[in-house]
Amino acid sequence: MKKSIPEDLWKAFFQGDRLACARLITIAENRKERVPELRDALANRLGRAVRIGITGPPGVGKSTLTSLLALGMADAGHKVGIVAVDPSSPFSGGAFMGDRVRMEGLVGDQRIYMRSLASREGHGGLSPSTPDVADVLEGFGMDRILIETVGVGQAELDVLECTDLVVLVLQPSTGDAIQTMKAGIIEAADLIVVNKADLPGKDVVLNSLRFLFGMGLTKKIRPVPPVMTTSAMQNEGLPELVAELEKLASVLLDSGRHADLRRARMEKEIREAISQCLWTAYDGLTGATKCIQEKARELVEKAESPYPFIRESCSRVRVQALDKEASNGHGA
Amino acid sequence: MKKSIPEDLWKAFFQGDRLACARLITIAENRKERVPELRDALANRLGRAVRIGITGPPGVGKSTLTSLLALGMADAGHKVGIVAVDPSSPFSGGAFMGDRVRMEGLVGDQRIYMRSLASREGHGGLSPSTPDVADVLEGFGMDRILIETVGVGQAELDVLECTDLVVLVLQPSTGDAIQTMKAGIIEAADLIVVNKADLPGKDVVLNSLRFLFGMGLTKKIRPVPPVMTTSAMQNEGLPELVAELEKLASVLLDSGRHADLRRARMEKEIREAISQCLWTAYDGLTGATKCIQEKARELVEKAESPYPFIRESCSRVRVQALDKEASNGHGA
Repeated sequence: MKKSIPEDLWKAFFQGDRLACARLITIAENRKERVPELRDALANRLGRAVRIGITGPPGVGKSTLTSLLALGMADAGHKVGIVAVDPSSPFSGGAFMGDRVRMEGLVGDQRIYMRSLASREGHGGLSPSTPDVADVLEGFGMDRILIETVGVGQAELDVLECTDLVVLVLQPSTGDAIQTMKAGIIEAADLIVVNKADLPGKDVVLNSLRFLFGMGLTKKIRPVPPVMTTSAMQNEGLPELVAELEKLASVLLDSGRHADLRRARMEKEIREAISQCLWTAYDGLTGATKCIQEKARELVEKAESPYPFIRESCSRVRVQALDKEASNGHGA
Repeated sequence: MKKSIPEDLWKAFFQGDRLACARLITIAENRKERVPELRDALANRLGRAVRIGITGPPGVGKSTLTSLLALGMADAGHKVGIVAVDPSSPFSGGAFMGDRVRMEGLVGDQRIYMRSLASREGHGGLSPSTPDVADVLEGFGMDRILIETVGVGQAELDVLECTDLVVLVLQPSTGDAIQTMKAGIIEAADLIVVNKADLPGKDVVLNSLRFLFGMGLTKKIRPVPPVMTTSAMQNEGLPELVAELEKLASVLLDSGRHADLRRARMEKEIREAISQCLWTAYDGLTGATKCIQEKARELVEKAESPYPFIRESCSRVRVQALDKEASNGHGA
């Protein structure tokens, strides 16, 4: 395999050079073809960090809460990476100057590394490179990685796929938002935070949550998550939130669930990569991509089923195992 | 290929027997392995219907609007299928008795066929069988198929994949909801309906929409969609809405975009089916599923990169084209 990331860059990265970290994140974010190289180089530093998704509707104060959580975790002795994928997040430059200035309090802090990523175009989902960026941060020595994402649309499912814990952030009087969110993320949250608890209406959101849990909507999947209240602006409830998250992180690591999640993600990654290899080989052999385009056009025009073509295509191809010696060292 | 759907059932279905239609929908919904058989039998009846997604936050009156739209389209000479996948929809039995009774006004109407589907578990997404159920309805002769789905979470993306037009339903004072939805569905809507226009706050939602469009958030993707106001309860604005939708349907069909969408979906279906064949053959040959499980466990334990294993797996397999004569009629 041709290596394309310079040795010097890796050396600086492993020595803790933040600029080198920034450059590797940029590679992870934009160069999908370099991912195998990144994984190979970082592998022996991965597996211990806890990745925490911070999600919730826009405007509930996720970014402020995330930065205060990062500071709290750093004070507790952790090195903290932040990946912000919320398009409305001040991290991503999407919001009010006051917020952004507040976030920049983190900039000089060597215990924390923050990076905002572009959201997947038009869908508000996580960037597909989010797990790769988290790998770089974990390889850089971060043992807590906070992934901030807006908790609607595709992002709510993406964030479940690439994090070990999910914190859902709400605010007083987000009764409506709970309605629209209940189909997905609430069942998946490991911890619910009602932020801005200084504002009126805290009881509304707490009652809505009690109602949902009382209906048994979530119990089938996992136990009712703890619900905490904070006021990030007034710095209230933060130490308790950090402590609760650390408790959840300990249980996750000690129970083996953390390793189970990593294993499941590793399996999926291998399966998808091999499947992609098979398709690439098939496409190279048969010119399938072009052929399928033409066939689809014809089938739609003639109003015919695709299955005769699918069956014929499948019957005309064989997957064959090669001798280990014959193939050793050659890519498919 | 072994046929498993009885000839009698097909015969009754093609004669317009609604009970036979119900039974085939149940097969489409629950028996993924029968899909090729369904597609083969229905193919020559597919390709002309317009599939319209009706989406939006819970509580905006999508179901009432959908049933009135169906009646309006039936009056205009169409045969209308309704697929309801919103877990909170009265179609799905999820809401108030009054609504449900109102929906049942459709029951005796031979021009309309309604079916509610279970939502994909826990995620609020469309049932993966939704397109197959729509195929059955189209094969039954329906030329307008309304797919009602709650416009949050995974569903908003699923609905884009399987419909030709998307109607986003809002209500006055859903300013908050627009905030949470803007990342996905608003850009994709072909038509926005502000329902319950008799309620106060209509201007709030209209202004929010103008603000979003004014920011150019959506223009990159396609032109600003028409925004209409209705009051389904007071039966206002419905004829205009039906007329506007029919206009969009005509443009869709005449411009060739309808065929383009069908073709793109056909291509994706073929690619995924062949890819699945390749994987099944590979798995049968190498026992990959089990082997990958064990390998992932080992790699996570040892903190190693999966890529050496992926590269070796890919290098040890070859995809081979078979002679047409030798393989004709045999599955892979």
